[in-house]
Amino acid sequence: MTAEVEVRAMRTAIAASERVRGTTSPNPPVGCVILDARGEVAGVGATSPPGGPHAEVNALREAGARAEGGTAVVTLEPCAHSGRTPPCTDALQAAGVARVVHAASDPNPSASGGAEVLRSAGVDVHSGLLADEVAKGPLRAWLHFVHTGRPHVTWKYAATLDGRSAAADGTSKWISSAQSRAEVHRVRAAMDAIVAGTGTILADDAQLTARDPDGNLLDRQPLRVVIGDREIPPGARVLDDAAETLRLPGGDPAAALAELAGRGVVDVLLEGGPTLAGAFWEAGLVDRVLAYVAPALLGAGPAALGSAGVGSISQAWRLRIEETTMSGPDVRISAVPQD
Amino acid sequence: MTAEVEVRAMRTAIAASERVRGTTSPNPPVGCVILDARGEVAGVGATSPPGGPHAEVNALREAGARAEGGTAVVTLEPCAHSGRTPPCTDALQAAGVARVVHAASDPNPSASGGAEVLRSAGVDVHSGLLADEVAKGPLRAWLHFVHTGRPHVTWKYAATLDGRSAAADGTSKWISSAQSRAEVHRVRAAMDAIVAGTGTILADDAQLTARDPDGNLLDRQPLRVVIGDREIPPGARVLDDAAETLRLPGGDPAAALAELAGRGVVDVLLEGGPTLAGAFWEAGLVDRVLAYVAPALLGAGPAALGSAGVGSISQAWRLRIEETTMSGPDVRISAVPQD
Repeated sequence: MTAEVEVRAMRTAIAASERVRGTTSPNPPVGCVILDARGEVAGVGATSPPGGPHAEVNALREAGARAEGGTAVVTLEPCAHSGRTPPCTDALQAAGVARVVHAASDPNPSASGGAEVLRSAGVDVHSGLLADEVAKGPLRAWLHFVHTGRPHVTWKYAATLDGRSAAADGTSKWISSAQSRAEVHRVRAAMDAIVAGTGTILADDAQLTARDPDGNLLDRQPLRVVIGDREIPPGARVLDDAAETLRLPGGDPAAALAELAGRGVVDVLLEGGPTLAGAFWEAGLVDRVLAYVAPALLGAGPAALGSAGVGSISQAWRLRIEETTMSGPDVRISAVPQD
Repeated sequence: MTAEVEVRAMRTAIAASERVRGTTSPNPPVGCVILDARGEVAGVGATSPPGGPHAEVNALREAGARAEGGTAVVTLEPCAHSGRTPPCTDALQAAGVARVVHAASDPNPSASGGAEVLRSAGVDVHSGLLADEVAKGPLRAWLHFVHTGRPHVTWKYAATLDGRSAAADGTSKWISSAQSRAEVHRVRAAMDAIVAGTGTILADDAQLTARDPDGNLLDRQPLRVVIGDREIPPGARVLDDAAETLRLPGGDPAAALAELAGRGVVDVLLEGGPTLAGAFWEAGLVDRVLAYVAPALLGAGPAALGSAGVGSISQAWRLRIEETTMSGPDVRISAVPQD
């Protein structure tokens, strides 16, 4: 078996894990590929919703007897503890897997040690394959949650090149392109919760759902969270039955995230508006920026980001750009706060 | 001789023309490579300052007798008219050049016809090699000038991701990175004029010169143009002897460009501030945007672009992105208005 086969299997495992994002919290979205003794793919699995089997068990079920003497390639170190399901290390050993290759190590004290348990049982264990890719990708939010106890917050916004999120008269349909808007709906569908302020709800009657380009609801709908004290009219779209909606009065970002963490929300998309985004920045509670910069200029109108506690240039929030890509005619920028 | 040799020669000619940008106006910055009969580079030349030889003549001088039976590869169709210098078509024929390959055709009625003149004289002429690259690159401003009678205006700005060009307290050193600032100085050095409003001069005491990272003046300094009626104190740096400075009261962009066109200014860098940039946009007189977007957030402070005559989203200035590249940690976006 060559390393190349295992890298390819890990990419398949990553892709499988991406498909279950938004359905596993507070468990991590993990992907697993079982290679048989000849290195052929015998099974692919991903984490089931909470209470259901982990990725390894789903992949082993598909592989059946072909797992014997084979290799399990998994995005996260297999768990060695009994939670709502038995330890994955037991399942791997019972299936006769000879080798385990995993990307990220499990930072969770109660679950970790899986690699060591397997090694002691005579299984060949290799740790860290594509670990960085997994840690910045499908397991990013969950790793953040385990390390900090807080949901991972992605602030998404769309603005013109000159930083406006609407024109002087308040019109904003549309700043960004159809391609970007479709992508945002797919991003929403992979999140645990979408957060907006009452201002945005009142201004745009935002529904905060994940929809296809025809406006139909996608299969998965994250929790809708509306932060703030202003009253929302009973007919507002955010209160329809398309998805669950949580009202969080007060408007304190830290308190809101604590409440969400208690509900098992790991991955949050913060969608505005400028006042709420500013409050999250001022509290230091934004973990990633996803900006859709449209090649347009307005010269007036509300800015994408309101007061964020910055008075002078030396206090600016400095970021590091992770990736810049085109999204149709728009520039899509992914950035993270500098340490 | 293969086409590949001529493409390579054209790239050398383009590079030669880039080196004389900012020194040739109102003449075009042209580059020329003479290949000898065996296809070897025999001479490279570019346009001398106004009154001096054109690119072809400079390249022919370097090639000497090796031009006989060779090929002239030139970024612009050779001129067939007598201006301050004799027609280049004469010089090419006198040198015995057998073939001429040019990129852009000369749109200038008084100069065009060079290709036809050469063909009639038995020279093999090929038009259009890398024409698009040249038309969007070194000859872009000059072609625009010939077509419209107006200088080409590049609006350059640096802003944060949220579109601010300074913090709430007015501080702006520095929004963009050292790499981006050094690049802007090189861009300045290739321009005919740098334009700013009195507001920027008063706020920043901007010198509007092209400098190296140590602050030393580069060899070439474009004309400094200050638009607006507010008084500038005698000690302002823009009035020092580092370069020529032109005051244009009134603040009307069209009038300012007409004045500059009369002075042979072809390529203009508009550097702000927001009010003047807004006025240029409102007048429809910006031909290109060069944005340095710094991965930083301020949440307050002046916007990069002031009122540009846009009230509603349907009136937004829509652009097409030509190129997005990294400039150190910043994102550099080149965009042009949509037709």
